[in-house]
Amino acid sequence: MSLIRVQNFSISLDGFGTGAGQTKDLHFGHAGDRLHEWMFATRYWEAGGSGGVDDLFLRQFDAGVGAEIMGAGKFGHPGWHDDPDWKGAWGPNPPFHTPVFVLTHHPRPSIEMEGGTTYHFLNAEPAEAAKIARDAAGGLDVRLGGGPSMIRDFLAAGLVDHMHVSVVPILLGRGVRLWDGLEGLERDYRVETTSSPSGVTHLTFTRSAGA
Amino acid sequence: MSLIRVQNFSISLDGFGTGAGQTKDLHFGHAGDRLHEWMFATRYWEAGGSGGVDDLFLRQFDAGVGAEIMGAGKFGHPGWHDDPDWKGAWGPNPPFHTPVFVLTHHPRPSIEMEGGTTYHFLNAEPAEAAKIARDAAGGLDVRLGGGPSMIRDFLAAGLVDHMHVSVVPILLGRGVRLWDGLEGLERDYRVETTSSPSGVTHLTFTRSAGA
Repeated sequence: MSLIRVQNFSISLDGFGTGAGQTKDLHFGHAGDRLHEWMFATRYWEAGGSGGVDDLFLRQFDAGVGAEIMGAGKFGHPGWHDDPDWKGAWGPNPPFHTPVFVLTHHPRPSIEMEGGTTYHFLNAEPAEAAKIARDAAGGLDVRLGGGPSMIRDFLAAGLVDHMHVSVVPILLGRGVRLWDGLEGLERDYRVETTSSPSGVTHLTFTRSAGA
Repeated sequence: MSLIRVQNFSISLDGFGTGAGQTKDLHFGHAGDRLHEWMFATRYWEAGGSGGVDDLFLRQFDAGVGAEIMGAGKFGHPGWHDDPDWKGAWGPNPPFHTPVFVLTHHPRPSIEMEGGTTYHFLNAEPAEAAKIARDAAGGLDVRLGGGPSMIRDFLAAGLVDHMHVSVVPILLGRGVRLWDGLEGLERDYRVETTSSPSGVTHLTFTRSAGA
């Protein structure tokens, strides 16, 4: 069965998935790379890296994924839609290698990139976007790529089948929170926590049978 | 050396240490007992309970502690200071068994309870309260008992030597947050995370040498 899932989404101890002050050069604002350093230390990322639990989770990033949905803030800094040549914050050969559906109130024609990534632009609610992405995924899973606001919207709409969140032991203090407005979310999921020697805690939310 | 420490302070995944709507009958507001059920399942709490990592952390509650400081909201529901007969939310034989310093803008005469607990009332800033409690602790540690606002104030003032926080895998959505306004706190501490089979994640903050 094709799942809609969140994979390797990193937040701070105080719940921020993006820092404050996002710009073209600071994709995560004042957070810099600090939410993602745990990834760089794995052998999935680089030969010689750690092969422990961080690595195992990270490998689920593309395993069995046929499409991604991302929010406008992941595609680019605020105001990217005023730049007709903007092709995303992820370089000429983005790490997605599938269709990617960008949720935006400013849709534009699709952009084919190197390596199998094609950006499509949707002005759509979560349920409609989920249906379109699932059709494009060809029976594989759909990854919800973030940022925090779009994941929160999909959670609130009851559209998330599985979620992996990595909690990094830093306090960002400012930015965009993941958990706002989700009181009682745990009732629909089996929640497990796994702490890693790196200091990161991995949370998995798996939809309960019948929920 | 006498430490000022936080022990077994429980918060939700979204960072709330107290729920919303605190009343005389609902000491933690809409959170009810949900932040503390992990404690009730230990053998420290009840014979036949679990003896794993939750139990080990819980046993540090009174080990080597000579005094507690608590916020007004832990001593009672909003408005307790209008009740001259109020003797705290912890019964005739409170579980502290030491001097307890209640921070309040409405100080009253000290109250001696059964079992060694004496409540003293201080209208004082964190640094002054810490000094008074440390003197009373007779060389033992001072526990910061909560709620979240007073722990936050002591952290912001740089007065906390060691902190144990238990993150419970529920989303309360509303209440009083622990982490607000503490950006960069991790720089002064060594932070470790330990996940328990109960689903709780234990965070320990130990002040770095020289910090």
